[in-house]
Amino acid sequence: MLPTILDLSSVRAAYADGLTPLQLVEEVIARCDAVDDPAIFISRASAEQLRMQAKDLMDRAPEPNSLALWGIPFAAKDNIDVAGLPTTAACPAYEYQPQKDATLIARLKAAGAIVIGKTNLDQFATGLNGTRSPFGAPRSVFDKDYVSGGSSSGSAVSVASGLASFALGTDTAGSGRVPAAFNNLVGIKPTPGLVPNTGVVPACRSVDVVTVFAATVGDGIAIRRVMDGFDADDPFSTEAQPATLPTTDLKVGVLVGAEREFYGNTSVEALYDAAIERAKSLGATIVPFDYVPFREAAELLYNGPWVAERLAAVKDFIKTHADAFDPAVRKIIEGASAYDAVDAFEGKYKLEALRQRAKAEWSKLDVLLLPTSPTTYTVEDMLADPIVKNSHFGRYTNFANLFGYAAIAIPAGFDDEGHLPAGVTLVGPAFSDDALAPFADQMHRALSAGMGKDRTATLPEAAKVYVPDDGMIEIVVVGAHLTGMPLNPELTSGGGKLVKSCRTAGDYRLYALPDTTPPKPGLIRDPSFDGAGLEVEVWKLPAAAFGQFVANIPAPLGIGKVTLDDGSTVSSFLCEAHALKDAQEITALGGWRAFIKNMA
Amino acid sequence: MLPTILDLSSVRAAYADGLTPLQLVEEVIARCDAVDDPAIFISRASAEQLRMQAKDLMDRAPEPNSLALWGIPFAAKDNIDVAGLPTTAACPAYEYQPQKDATLIARLKAAGAIVIGKTNLDQFATGLNGTRSPFGAPRSVFDKDYVSGGSSSGSAVSVASGLASFALGTDTAGSGRVPAAFNNLVGIKPTPGLVPNTGVVPACRSVDVVTVFAATVGDGIAIRRVMDGFDADDPFSTEAQPATLPTTDLKVGVLVGAEREFYGNTSVEALYDAAIERAKSLGATIVPFDYVPFREAAELLYNGPWVAERLAAVKDFIKTHADAFDPAVRKIIEGASAYDAVDAFEGKYKLEALRQRAKAEWSKLDVLLLPTSPTTYTVEDMLADPIVKNSHFGRYTNFANLFGYAAIAIPAGFDDEGHLPAGVTLVGPAFSDDALAPFADQMHRALSAGMGKDRTATLPEAAKVYVPDDGMIEIVVVGAHLTGMPLNPELTSGGGKLVKSCRTAGDYRLYALPDTTPPKPGLIRDPSFDGAGLEVEVWKLPAAAFGQFVANIPAPLGIGKVTLDDGSTVSSFLCEAHALKDAQEITALGGWRAFIKNMA
Repeated sequence: MLPTILDLSSVRAAYADGLTPLQLVEEVIARCDAVDDPAIFISRASAEQLRMQAKDLMDRAPEPNSLALWGIPFAAKDNIDVAGLPTTAACPAYEYQPQKDATLIARLKAAGAIVIGKTNLDQFATGLNGTRSPFGAPRSVFDKDYVSGGSSSGSAVSVASGLASFALGTDTAGSGRVPAAFNNLVGIKPTPGLVPNTGVVPACRSVDVVTVFAATVGDGIAIRRVMDGFDADDPFSTEAQPATLPTTDLKVGVLVGAEREFYGNTSVEALYDAAIERAKSLGATIVPFDYVPFREAAELLYNGPWVAERLAAVKDFIKTHADAFDPAVRKIIEGASAYDAVDAFEGKYKLEALRQRAKAEWSKLDVLLLPTSPTTYTVEDMLADPIVKNSHFGRYTNFANLFGYAAIAIPAGFDDEGHLPAGVTLVGPAFSDDALAPFADQMHRALSAGMGKDRTATLPEAAKVYVPDDGMIEIVVVGAHLTGMPLNPELTSGGGKLVKSCRTAGDYRLYALPDTTPPKPGLIRDPSFDGAGLEVEVWKLPAAAFGQFVANIPAPLGIGKVTLDDGSTVSSFLCEAHALKDAQEITALGGWRAFIKNMA
Repeated sequence: MLPTILDLSSVRAAYADGLTPLQLVEEVIARCDAVDDPAIFISRASAEQLRMQAKDLMDRAPEPNSLALWGIPFAAKDNIDVAGLPTTAACPAYEYQPQKDATLIARLKAAGAIVIGKTNLDQFATGLNGTRSPFGAPRSVFDKDYVSGGSSSGSAVSVASGLASFALGTDTAGSGRVPAAFNNLVGIKPTPGLVPNTGVVPACRSVDVVTVFAATVGDGIAIRRVMDGFDADDPFSTEAQPATLPTTDLKVGVLVGAEREFYGNTSVEALYDAAIERAKSLGATIVPFDYVPFREAAELLYNGPWVAERLAAVKDFIKTHADAFDPAVRKIIEGASAYDAVDAFEGKYKLEALRQRAKAEWSKLDVLLLPTSPTTYTVEDMLADPIVKNSHFGRYTNFANLFGYAAIAIPAGFDDEGHLPAGVTLVGPAFSDDALAPFADQMHRALSAGMGKDRTATLPEAAKVYVPDDGMIEIVVVGAHLTGMPLNPELTSGGGKLVKSCRTAGDYRLYALPDTTPPKPGLIRDPSFDGAGLEVEVWKLPAAAFGQFVANIPAPLGIGKVTLDDGSTVSSFLCEAHALKDAQEITALGGWRAFIKNMA
């Protein structure tokens, strides 16, 4: 009844067909028992806990799919508190029993989601590779010799293996994106502050972000929306101020020249170039940009005072439990003691200077299209050179949270041998989280790479992300506001765009108004008249600009509704009837252009 | 020809009457030579430099008052670079000759302003009292025993003494506000990032703000607007996103209970209470609020890691010139070495947590009304206990830049003996800089305390700050949208407000449209008709809400213009003429309410 990959649409369809949440959790238990990677979970919900969640859901909301995430199974990275399961951050000595759910977990549960367990991670979320854990190294679902990516290693593998519909990661340097790339998944990395961190073990508290691994962009966005929202208990929680992006002619920034660095991995390089071609075929304009300020910001995250945040998060614990740390993690965290408060502020100055340089690049771009990770490594290679090889993974991710951007990591296909996948990431300005989604989904759908470990799966139509209503209001112009006419700049200067040229329905008459400057026509409806319709243009304007436009229209003109020849009804210029008393009827000319032409 | 206080209106009027910039600079030279406080300036522009500036202006823009600050004399705090004058930050060993003007100085000069000199300050802008300088302590213009306030001490005294039309300060803890209070001036403290700091010696670089001392709010705002604007060379420069405030029924937050602390100064306390009464008399609603999160943030500035920013600013210099520092300043700056990077980030966490608590207070407030300084001291008392007494001055100012707020300090009058003045400060959200100004100006004008040292001066009408256009669009409603009618919520839910009830001009007719739900009337103009006018309501809506409102109006109704009984023309519901064919004329009833009443 359930496919390999438990995307939301498939699970919902199964529920609609009669599957019960109790049946689903039995299936999940069976899959988790059978999975061939022992390092995915640090703790699993017991069969009893799972059945209890299913029963509670049935009591609370018996109707299938009656909540946003009704009966949807998910896994949480083990640095996020889930009441009833221990939190370890992949450090057994750090383990505690949380008394309550993290805010975002409570929101997911309230929406009907069922938590199946706590997943493995690079200890204290310090790493991008997935090997820094005493609970073992989860592996890429495509080759057990290769790393899964990290730090949200077990989360990505759980979804890509079909154990959960989605899983939560956390992302400071790229931990919610890199594992998505290595496991053929979507990684939703919200703008910092959008999803509250209350109940999450901090890594770098000022730049930590909870992320979603999902099979499709649509799934990921739907899940993120459940977790969104201000939480006064999180010092960095903010009220979202959604940013928009153009819905057509997207300007997509890409790497060029020396900034294209793949550490010799020609497969990933080829997949990146293919993604650029895909973007182009979807109508995007490709814009080379200077990655240097972004790279320099990326380098600050581990080679700058921000590592002191990692120390701040565990400073009492490390005093008494230094030996409990993974050696690479300990080395990084202890390195923080070299930084004083002056260094911390100077790091901030440097970051803000880089932000100004990055801003200059943004002036020519709408989004960035970057490799998620420029390469990958085997577990063996990673363990042999854990700091340097880990840093390669973060080359194109580390800057995003320092600058406060939104990002969506999407699959980019498989290498020539069909062996290992790679990913690309779309990065947008702060709070462009929703605005990024339609193009990210189009990019994903233009690829045929399946979902997670199922390379032949088709992306479900039901999860498609549509281009949002752009909030523009359509208006029919009839005379002096037509393209090329004297008042047309009133439309274009307000952000107006021409939608189409067309005709009104047949029952309208047009008059040349006397004594108007510039000359203007008057349109009125006469239900008793059956003409050929009049030539008009449909424009659209942002709501505020439309409001100002209407407010500035002088009598006897005004804005009402006209019916067009396609039967649609649109806001339009109309004229008060009294003004037509001495006006010349010009209906027979078919429109204002013909009249002006005759006059000239 | 020129009055004691050189406010912009007076100088402009003198120029309009024939005064030349050359004459003005001679007058300024004479006043500076004669002034009875030797500690105001660290360096003065030479007579030759002043005359050259006047001549350059005449060459560049011969028409009087043809630039925003045509021939307006100003002084700059000596931590702001002015080409041709040394920068010392009140530390002679630190002196350097800047090669170019600070960005904001260049903007002021381009607007025609004439720089007269560099003013004294608490060394490295570290202090709020004005005694921490080897160049002496400028004194309150009202009593030479008393401090002038600092750190922008010389700047405030120069304006209050009538040497300059305005002067620039810098404000980290309150240095652009406290000296305004002690010298009967207005202090404009912009939102951090609005005015660029390029060419300003940093104190706490992430929270430093250039300020304006002026005679009136109107002067200060006009000057700040010249300095505003993004500068990519300043890492903390931002694009302003102007915030609005209500133009009526302002909710003004005031101190209550234990948070009212005046250190025994009952005069300042009484003047604060009088300011609250003044706000009330101007129509404000007084709202007690919890100052604790603001106070706790204020305490972080000197008793937290932010002092490391002061060390960062001079870290190389202090290594070799520790003895060149004022003892109090050195003690503060050297204290910074106790903080490590973990402390810096933990300070940030604490601040952000306080910001969330402050946010809860803002939910019930529009602006804060606070004492600028809760008390003042003699120079002798200050020098006897320089750290503690200085900290008293910052009790109600220190939080503002850490939280990123805008503030305007205004005079609050003189103590009972007419001896010393006090001030109050209006604090608003980020980028409410302009929005704060009308109420601040009203508060200032409701007081009769003169300007600077001239207690009898009248605030010039020409500098009055008018309530800005609130961006709302007026619309006349005629029928189902009237107050209490079924569609009225379409107005109120969009942020609409009732402006007034009135009548149309006499040449309108009203009809009850058949087959409308809810019942709706149709209004049309008939120039041949001479009736009594129809009862209508004028509402106003934000532009975007108005746009959406218009877009949702069904045919045969629309929005055109009607003339009201006062002769004004306003956007209004009108009706297409064809729809009135079978409609009952109800003009004689005088309006829609009467018709609905008759129906019932």
